[in-house]
Amino acid sequence: MSVSIFDSFLTTQDMIAVFDDAAIVQGMLRFEQALAAAQAEQGMLPAAAARAIAGVCKAQLYDIPAIVGAGRRAGSLAIPLVRELTRTVALYDAEAAARVHWGSTSQDVIDTAMVLATRDALRLLDDGLHQLCGHLLQLAERHSATPVLARTLMQPAQVSSFGFKVAGWLAPLVRARARLRDCAARALQLQLGGAVGTLSVMGEQGAAVAARVAADLGLKLADATWHTQRDEWVRLGLEVAVLSGSMGKIATDLSLMAQGEIAELAEPSGNGRGGSSAMPHKRNPVSAMIALAAATRAPQHAAALLASMGQQHERGLGNWQAELAEWPQLFLSAHGALQALNEAFAGLVVDPDRMRRNIDALQGLVFAEAASAALAVAIGRPAAHQLLEKMSADTLASGRQLADVLAAAVRADPQLNEKIDLPALAALFDPATAAEPARRLAAWQLAGLREQNAAFNANPFHHRTNA
Amino acid sequence: MSVSIFDSFLTTQDMIAVFDDAAIVQGMLRFEQALAAAQAEQGMLPAAAARAIAGVCKAQLYDIPAIVGAGRRAGSLAIPLVRELTRTVALYDAEAAARVHWGSTSQDVIDTAMVLATRDALRLLDDGLHQLCGHLLQLAERHSATPVLARTLMQPAQVSSFGFKVAGWLAPLVRARARLRDCAARALQLQLGGAVGTLSVMGEQGAAVAARVAADLGLKLADATWHTQRDEWVRLGLEVAVLSGSMGKIATDLSLMAQGEIAELAEPSGNGRGGSSAMPHKRNPVSAMIALAAATRAPQHAAALLASMGQQHERGLGNWQAELAEWPQLFLSAHGALQALNEAFAGLVVDPDRMRRNIDALQGLVFAEAASAALAVAIGRPAAHQLLEKMSADTLASGRQLADVLAAAVRADPQLNEKIDLPALAALFDPATAAEPARRLAAWQLAGLREQNAAFNANPFHHRTNA
Amino acid sequence: MSVSIFDSFLTTQDMIAVFDDAAIVQGMLRFEQALAAAQAEQGMLPAAAARAIAGVCKAQLYDIPAIVGAGRRAGSLAIPLVRELTRTVALYDAEAAARVHWGSTSQDVIDTAMVLATRDALRLLDDGLHQLCGHLLQLAERHSATPVLARTLMQPAQVSSFGFKVAGWLAPLVRARARLRDCAARALQLQLGGAVGTLSVMGEQGAAVAARVAADLGLKLADATWHTQRDEWVRLGLEVAVLSGSMGKIATDLSLMAQGEIAELAEPSGNGRGGSSAMPHKRNPVSAMIALAAATRAPQHAAALLASMGQQHERGLGNWQAELAEWPQLFLSAHGALQALNEAFAGLVVDPDRMRRNIDALQGLVFAEAASAALAVAIGRPAAHQLLEKMSADTLASGRQLADVLAAAVRADPQLNEKIDLPALAALFDPATAAEPARRLAAWQLAGLREQNAAFNANPFHHRTNA
Amino acid sequence: MSVSIFDSFLTTQDMIAVFDDAAIVQGMLRFEQALAAAQAEQGMLPAAAARAIAGVCKAQLYDIPAIVGAGRRAGSLAIPLVRELTRTVALYDAEAAARVHWGSTSQDVIDTAMVLATRDALRLLDDGLHQLCGHLLQLAERHSATPVLARTLMQPAQVSSFGFKVAGWLAPLVRARARLRDCAARALQLQLGGAVGTLSVMGEQGAAVAARVAADLGLKLADATWHTQRDEWVRLGLEVAVLSGSMGKIATDLSLMAQGEIAELAEPSGNGRGGSSAMPHKRNPVSAMIALAAATRAPQHAAALLASMGQQHERGLGNWQAELAEWPQLFLSAHGALQALNEAFAGLVVDPDRMRRNIDALQGLVFAEAASAALAVAIGRPAAHQLLEKMSADTLASGRQLADVLAAAVRADPQLNEKIDLPALAALFDPATAAEPARRLAAWQLAGLREQNAAFNANPFHHRTNA
Repeated sequence: MSVSIFDSFLTTQDMIAVFDDAAIVQGMLRFEQALAAAQAEQGMLPAAAARAIAGVCKAQLYDIPAIVGAGRRAGSLAIPLVRELTRTVALYDAEAAARVHWGSTSQDVIDTAMVLATRDALRLLDDGLHQLCGHLLQLAERHSATPVLARTLMQPAQVSSFGFKVAGWLAPLVRARARLRDCAARALQLQLGGAVGTLSVMGEQGAAVAARVAADLGLKLADATWHTQRDEWVRLGLEVAVLSGSMGKIATDLSLMAQGEIAELAEPSGNGRGGSSAMPHKRNPVSAMIALAAATRAPQHAAALLASMGQQHERGLGNWQAELAEWPQLFLSAHGALQALNEAFAGLVVDPDRMRRNIDALQGLVFAEAASAALAVAIGRPAAHQLLEKMSADTLASGRQLADVLAAAVRADPQLNEKIDLPALAALFDPATAAEPARRLAAWQLAGLREQNAAFNANPFHHRTNA
Repeated sequence: MSVSIFDSFLTTQDMIAVFDDAAIVQGMLRFEQALAAAQAEQGMLPAAAARAIAGVCKAQLYDIPAIVGAGRRAGSLAIPLVRELTRTVALYDAEAAARVHWGSTSQDVIDTAMVLATRDALRLLDDGLHQLCGHLLQLAERHSATPVLARTLMQPAQVSSFGFKVAGWLAPLVRARARLRDCAARALQLQLGGAVGTLSVMGEQGAAVAARVAADLGLKLADATWHTQRDEWVRLGLEVAVLSGSMGKIATDLSLMAQGEIAELAEPSGNGRGGSSAMPHKRNPVSAMIALAAATRAPQHAAALLASMGQQHERGLGNWQAELAEWPQLFLSAHGALQALNEAFAGLVVDPDRMRRNIDALQGLVFAEAASAALAVAIGRPAAHQLLEKMSADTLASGRQLADVLAAAVRADPQLNEKIDLPALAALFDPATAAEPARRLAAWQLAGLREQNAAFNANPFHHRTNA
Repeated sequence: MSVSIFDSFLTTQDMIAVFDDAAIVQGMLRFEQALAAAQAEQGMLPAAAARAIAGVCKAQLYDIPAIVGAGRRAGSLAIPLVRELTRTVALYDAEAAARVHWGSTSQDVIDTAMVLATRDALRLLDDGLHQLCGHLLQLAERHSATPVLARTLMQPAQVSSFGFKVAGWLAPLVRARARLRDCAARALQLQLGGAVGTLSVMGEQGAAVAARVAADLGLKLADATWHTQRDEWVRLGLEVAVLSGSMGKIATDLSLMAQGEIAELAEPSGNGRGGSSAMPHKRNPVSAMIALAAATRAPQHAAALLASMGQQHERGLGNWQAELAEWPQLFLSAHGALQALNEAFAGLVVDPDRMRRNIDALQGLVFAEAASAALAVAIGRPAAHQLLEKMSADTLASGRQLADVLAAAVRADPQLNEKIDLPALAALFDPATAAEPARRLAAWQLAGLREQNAAFNANPFHHRTNA
Repeated sequence: MSVSIFDSFLTTQDMIAVFDDAAIVQGMLRFEQALAAAQAEQGMLPAAAARAIAGVCKAQLYDIPAIVGAGRRAGSLAIPLVRELTRTVALYDAEAAARVHWGSTSQDVIDTAMVLATRDALRLLDDGLHQLCGHLLQLAERHSATPVLARTLMQPAQVSSFGFKVAGWLAPLVRARARLRDCAARALQLQLGGAVGTLSVMGEQGAAVAARVAADLGLKLADATWHTQRDEWVRLGLEVAVLSGSMGKIATDLSLMAQGEIAELAEPSGNGRGGSSAMPHKRNPVSAMIALAAATRAPQHAAALLASMGQQHERGLGNWQAELAEWPQLFLSAHGALQALNEAFAGLVVDPDRMRRNIDALQGLVFAEAASAALAVAIGRPAAHQLLEKMSADTLASGRQLADVLAAAVRADPQLNEKIDLPALAALFDPATAAEPARRLAAWQLAGLREQNAAFNANPFHHRTNA
């Protein structure tokens, strides 16, 4: 498949190749080959017939655009493909031709081809996640004690650590790897039910044939046909949408922190990346852009899958076809976002000084809550609260630092001066001190994430589909 | 653009061509050509420079995949395209090269190219609607008096006429033509604002240049840049989604009436259309299938446009790009549905006898309300209601026709027999009589629709974009 | 909460009560009570203070509409509630008042209250699923051998068994129970992070307090604050949407099979259920209607959750609030659908005779594939295929049964007559025989489903939230 | 209707009242009253009967929760309401009771009630838009020359004027007012079709009755029943979603400009608005928050309407009911957003000094493009471009202002010094000068918007629904 110019801008060549027309057709042929082989092993057709079929199960032998055109009329891509396959087999072995696609139905071949492509898509996602989790782990560890403003409701709130923030970005990605594997283990299953899901044509041998085909293709053997029971399949798609959402969260924060006026982070530049010749100061966050686009689109693609679930009787009319057409979109967008974030985090520019200056610019008001809590011990909670409220107002009015305003007030009041330990109070206004709770939590959380991430076995989606 | 194999199955080659990579790039070049020409006319650059630029504004001169790749890094397709264009112009005219894209910005060229493609897309839709409205008008007129079951909540209700039902399918399509033209008249506007929408580089001449470019391209001159004000544009996309919804309603009814057990309608067959070699009785409603797929997907594509509206400041990050990528989907699906329905209605098989038999199979119970109303005049409403309730129960229990059960009951009761005009009562059970109110409404409604449809002037989207 | 009149029509009073204003406020107070208790146990405040707080953590003490109004201004419901709670505590214990909500933040209390309500919602769903799975198991077993038309692309296809069809409805519900429990085990976690997620105010004791609060409320202790990391939470919501999709599939089939012209199933009637006084023959499938409405809405509610994931920094602006407001919708719709289907299946009317008559009405053409396969053994595949094609056309033209047409043709042709075993051929046209593969698969599948369903331990969502 | 606590937080009491249970029921009764009155005027029933019916068409007479409960069983709210109404009328006039709801169907009464409520909802929106447009017009005019950074892709780009930016916010709202009126003029139509849309029970008088009812209720008379043709109705809902999107764009910009580190705008504070006692520096943008929440949710609510369009035959099963339940959501969210923005803009704090300082902080690099263009005249385009590129790099490296770096370089190079007019060059670095093109465009655009806004006649949605 190639996609629209504005889609290809947001995805990767690798993922386009996974869902390319030729790849899907090859997946369909792979199914037919495995079916014939299994039937031969069960003694349902001569081994020579299975070999004859296998010999022409090669996508490059077929005129794919012509098949698409004929499929539109027929209402199914599988009908013309099977016809062409049969014709091609017949050139070599007439009896084998009579057994092509035997006992199977259009949806069997199409769904299974989509499952095979999806396994390849998941391999790309898992590789990308492996890489991105690595970047983020490293970044979080390096900056576990770096003070940064925490912001709530898009307003500076208190001081946190940048490593703690990054750990918050990382954790959902580690969970995404785990959940994608779980969902895949259930959803990557063979579709083989015959015309109405009962495998009736193959009689008693249906179950054994299905087991052989599943084993050959490295897929789970389904409990029953899932022609119109799409729940496990849809769950897998939704999981990709959740991943896009989690990447969108990262991209949101990244784009906000990269704003010129905040400038705590910047995507790497150079080699034509995000620059503007007319505006030399610009360093556009193009990776965040791609991930944000994916996060904007994924909810709707997910909704389309859910909206396609009410498939009628034993084969859906319109909804199954809609699901097939929407399915690749989620993977294309997600992999575009993943690769973009990997590019960003491979060379992310972090500016701890600017993080510090942004804290300082708030005149110490972000420490007011901590100061109030400390003073409460000395002078009681109500008095402390009242004092801080007044000092904060003075700070805002004067443009000075709260620490100074407060110290002056304490010094000017003998009663306060006596009760309050000024050096201890001053220490509360130190960003490094304020970042300490975040650092502590980050250390604990990162230990767990590092372990979970390391525990993933090798990419489980490396089955050689087209052996 | 080519699309995924499952997408191309659901759309048309014509619409794919409209949003093809080469077509979009050609639209971008068309914008650059018009901009240079307008600036030359305003005396801002030599006429020879404009000609030099025009001479190489031909998509086939450029390596589009390379531009997409570079665009991904740059964060915009326009940046590498303008660079390549500039380099190509420079081969002929160095000064002209310095003036390529002058005073314009990436979004100007991309949005305008999308507008030009969309005009072509609307031309296809309007042509398709013209054809489909013609089919439906003819069908409705032919069957304005044909009795058919009306069904509510998916249960047979009363008798209507098939022509009235078809008029109900037609009216939203006539409205869609009108609304699409209205929306297009507002949304097909030039995008030209320069870096931040102020046309600052062109100084006082910006407005005049914009007016010339708009005239050259046959587009509306916008009141202001719409870089991040997407409302008129989104409305146009939503209108296409509404059209898909109205076609989905038709396809829903068509697929229900084509069920084997109802069989009042059938899509045309032959030439590999919707058949099944294994199941000779099947005549799959493949046109309905395509229209239903479009109706399943359109709401989500519409939501994606709406979700992209919160574009930040003077150029959106991620959302504008998402909108661009989603935009063609609506048109691709809608045109697929439109062509599919045109195929279906060009040869629709209507079976008035089966419509009649389906009415008859309900034992006259669909006429119970009418009978009750008629009897109320003779014997009062409560007695009439009570009588019909009993007779209906007897009818259901006996499997006979309500008309017969009722007539027998009347004959058996001297009081009733005296008051009730049995031939008049029997007439109420005539489907043709029952269809009369529907026929009358259909005639009136169709007169209006015929007139409105005839009043559309020629397809207004025939501007030669690339003169 | 009460909901709009058209919403309440589609849900249940039980689920409305779960997300009612008073229930949410009570959940918020429950959180505050548990927090104070935990802090007391950690020695951070006197036990008496915790008791004073607990004493007024009762929703009925507060003016909820006034809190909502003040919350709108403040930008958070928690702010005015905590203020009112503090004021109320102060009536009894001034020091305790100073410690209300200590170290916590608005989002802690609101998210945790939502988690508590959601646990109650899941209890209702699990109970409903338990019941519905029971109905379907029984139905599937009773009809495992009942022949019924299988239909693909909304056309009669071949013969299956009704029990096999019901097993197909049941399996996704059993999976839904399992998946909901999995998701809940991860998502029902305490939210407790303080202002920016670092628990800074509670210092070293934060972790111990959190552990105590989680234990008290019966919730999972989160690895880290999930203020803006919503993936696990959203997954739970999506799982409810998948459930609605699976119920929508059932309702689709039910509504199609209940059509007057098909009439294989009917929802129970009586007691004002789905009737129409004017149209005595109508038996509206109102349960299917409610489940279809849920399935129409759930994809969009799911999309809203996904669209809310890009929450900025340490507390989202607008998106968190949108998520909260959309969240109950999924549960309200799903429970409405579940209860509706339970009502339908508690008294479902199944008409095996009509199922048989609908098969018979297709003139035996649904057996053509089986006949062709059988004849292929005797006369070779090409000849068999050709013969069946001709016989099918004759059948359609003549209105006779294919079995008869075929038998006559065989008898008329000595060559065929010799090779073909006519009684064996006739047997293929027996629906019961044709249903046998489906029966076999159903038996196998139901054994597994029965076991899985029985293996669910008692409803795990029965924690007494407000002890 | 009251809504969930998290919904009510995001909407207004006024809009809740519009779609309240009692309001909907009153609208249903208003329809029944108008129907009876019209039938009396047509001589179809005695005037006394119409008066008897009118006398009890008062919502407060009925037990609404009981009606909802019965409606759930019946599958329609109208069935139990009509039954209760009939019973109540019968207390006064038995004959009139027999004529309640005569010739009408459930959907007639429910759809018309929804239309009446929607007209009230549109009145609230139009009032709110009138107010908000007034605020924005004033703000734009006041700041038409105030320099502000324009930002593209979330990076500072060049200088614009704040008034121009505000004009960009305003224009879509003015268009929204116009479009809402257009859509309403088509969509606020009477629903009156009888059981299957043919008005059959009223015979020849149906059209006249419908005309009278429409006139009485102040609604458009539809060309035909729109029971399952929802296009005009859905367009109206989509228009509200577009409005939410346009408000979301404003809220996005507002929230970005209100960030503590940018601080060009602030929402009004005081009276518990957006404050935080623990964090005295916080001024949370709670109006933006509400508008962003609406913009996050509206796309999905719009999609739900579109997804409900495929309504089967003459009355939809599930989809019509879903549409009804989703419909109020769009209006509730939109009015919440509108009121929130009105609160924000009634007291918006604009800081032109900070806008200036944010420009200054970029070291003049935002003027590089203008300087390059000016220098090109003197020294040719390539030399100018090269010079600026070098000077920009020096500026970034040195932390100085580009104007100074450039002036120093010119002075140091006799050749440049001769050709370049230094005072003219310096003038380019004046933000006020740079804002001039924006000011000019804003003035022109605002003149048009002021005129369009003034041309709206009085709120057209003030029909007294319940006279």
